[in-house]
Amino acid sequence: MRIAQIAPLTESVPPRTYGGTERVVSYLTEELVAMGHDVTLFASGDSITDAKLEAIWPQALRFDSTLRDAMAPSMLMLEKIYQHAHEFDILHCHLDYWPFSLLSRQPTPYLTTLHGRLDLPEIAPVFDCFPDAPLVSISDMQRRPLPQGNFVGTVYHGLPPDLLTPQPMQRDYLAFLGRICPEKSPDRAIRIARAAGMKLKIAAKIDRVDKLYFEEVIRPMIDGDQIELIGEIGDAEKPAFLSGAKALLLPIDWPEPFGLVMIEAMACGTPVIAFPAGSVPEVIDHGVTGFIVHDEAEAVTAISRLHETSPTAIRRRFEQRFTARRMAEDYVALYRRLAVKSRPALRLVT
Amino acid sequence: MRIAQIAPLTESVPPRTYGGTERVVSYLTEELVAMGHDVTLFASGDSITDAKLEAIWPQALRFDSTLRDAMAPSMLMLEKIYQHAHEFDILHCHLDYWPFSLLSRQPTPYLTTLHGRLDLPEIAPVFDCFPDAPLVSISDMQRRPLPQGNFVGTVYHGLPPDLLTPQPMQRDYLAFLGRICPEKSPDRAIRIARAAGMKLKIAAKIDRVDKLYFEEVIRPMIDGDQIELIGEIGDAEKPAFLSGAKALLLPIDWPEPFGLVMIEAMACGTPVIAFPAGSVPEVIDHGVTGFIVHDEAEAVTAISRLHETSPTAIRRRFEQRFTARRMAEDYVALYRRLAVKSRPALRLVT
Repeated sequence: MRIAQIAPLTESVPPRTYGGTERVVSYLTEELVAMGHDVTLFASGDSITDAKLEAIWPQALRFDSTLRDAMAPSMLMLEKIYQHAHEFDILHCHLDYWPFSLLSRQPTPYLTTLHGRLDLPEIAPVFDCFPDAPLVSISDMQRRPLPQGNFVGTVYHGLPPDLLTPQPMQRDYLAFLGRICPEKSPDRAIRIARAAGMKLKIAAKIDRVDKLYFEEVIRPMIDGDQIELIGEIGDAEKPAFLSGAKALLLPIDWPEPFGLVMIEAMACGTPVIAFPAGSVPEVIDHGVTGFIVHDEAEAVTAISRLHETSPTAIRRRFEQRFTARRMAEDYVALYRRLAVKSRPALRLVT
Repeated sequence: MRIAQIAPLTESVPPRTYGGTERVVSYLTEELVAMGHDVTLFASGDSITDAKLEAIWPQALRFDSTLRDAMAPSMLMLEKIYQHAHEFDILHCHLDYWPFSLLSRQPTPYLTTLHGRLDLPEIAPVFDCFPDAPLVSISDMQRRPLPQGNFVGTVYHGLPPDLLTPQPMQRDYLAFLGRICPEKSPDRAIRIARAAGMKLKIAAKIDRVDKLYFEEVIRPMIDGDQIELIGEIGDAEKPAFLSGAKALLLPIDWPEPFGLVMIEAMACGTPVIAFPAGSVPEVIDHGVTGFIVHDEAEAVTAISRLHETSPTAIRRRFEQRFTARRMAEDYVALYRRLAVKSRPALRLVT
């Protein structure tokens, strides 16, 4: 199929550092190319891809320090998408509701993967306005606040299978991987590790907006011995970090729409001990790839049951459920469904 | 005519405090209603108007503390404008280039007043994309960086004639009115007043982003006696503040597209001593409504020539050139021109 992947311009595809959406767009794009599709990636010019790159702006907006009006590149992008729409069988957008007004008024089938949380009250009126815009959720839980949305499917994220693999390591600590922020509850992770009498390694970035939270709440809890902060890590360091962990702790306190870190752990054969918010109950197979717990005491109990899980079985489940190929195949199935559906309407027009 | 005025949602119309664009949209809207037109104002729900109010969002976005995704209301607005476009003879937008993609694909004539500076490099590619979108500049100087734009006219801003009027005051100080920020050069104003041996009263707001500049550069120059900071003032205080001034100092260091403060001073019969940036040479009639000066020494010389100007003559020039009625009539002339032009295209469609 002739497929347009349309990414936000904030980060390159893949992102230079952090950027969940752009990472997933990259995995999907490269996998679709590998499957033989004719893929064009609309993204910032510093993106790296085997697809055709339609560079809307020379570099990722977040790193363009000369930029004062950040809306200009995005509005330009919407116009370019509209102008090129007829060259594709399907337009796959990752720009939230931004292109709905335009794309709902042209004949090429399109769909939008929603990457963010959907429970902000201000977005409901926008979706009320576009009851027909085809949407994809990244977990079933994510779409609950928008019953009026035309969700055509849930497609869980996936990773290239060779990106992160189990390493031959002694598993002797608990791991926390992500951002230091109240929603991710690193304080809970620290208390759980202490109660279990285990070492906790925290691999995390600290955004500017979370500096105060870190200084006031988290830093005093870090002793550098039992509780250790090792800073931000990239894909190169993740296999060793995750393969050395007995479990990943994910004691989140917000409806995380997906949570890539869970499948990163699984890819390394590492079980996840998670609180049941957002996508957690859909991603974790309780007792196989980890444990879903409801409070810190249950988390400590789960730690004592970690021997019931097996790195091999966890990795196998990852390969069954969360590879980029599975993700790409799910999307292609949706593309075909939408492309077929749109044919009668096209006939009416021509 | 059936006219849609389409305002940004950031501030109400008129704005509660600061907000040049929304103030002008308010003056224009009310004047068009007074002239007998059928006007609909698309704006935030806390706007106050004699036109029909199409409330896109309950309150101005700047004061909606619950809002986390500020794009949602704006995207909703673009869609609503498109949906209602056919109800109007003309759509007058004040949303920069945001609606171009949509409005260029529907038959109702539209035009956009550009209220901001146009010399940011990132906006040129957007205007390249829309060579036919009808634009209005608020000064001839403003449009220079966009020679590719389809400018159908320049319309200077105007004020309701009774909003600010000359008050019977002793004129015994120099005035600075606006924001404290490097572009407006309050430091120059202070040095000019000192060199002229005159009192300077500064009526200004200080935005968060300019706090450091104020603390480091300006505050040390304020002695509270010769140089006095009186804080932010509203329309109620402006007539006395401006009528008590021998002149308004406008030693700007940026291409200000218009500069409402100049015509506010003129409305009070107060001459303006200004540096020739942006719209200044178009707005100030040198020797009549003020003096255009090129450095601080020339400004001091101009102060010694202020007796050559006359408050009555200045007020008269204001009434000739800068009332809301003159502004509204200019716009109606453009509306009619665009509406006539669009008729053949409309016939083809129907």
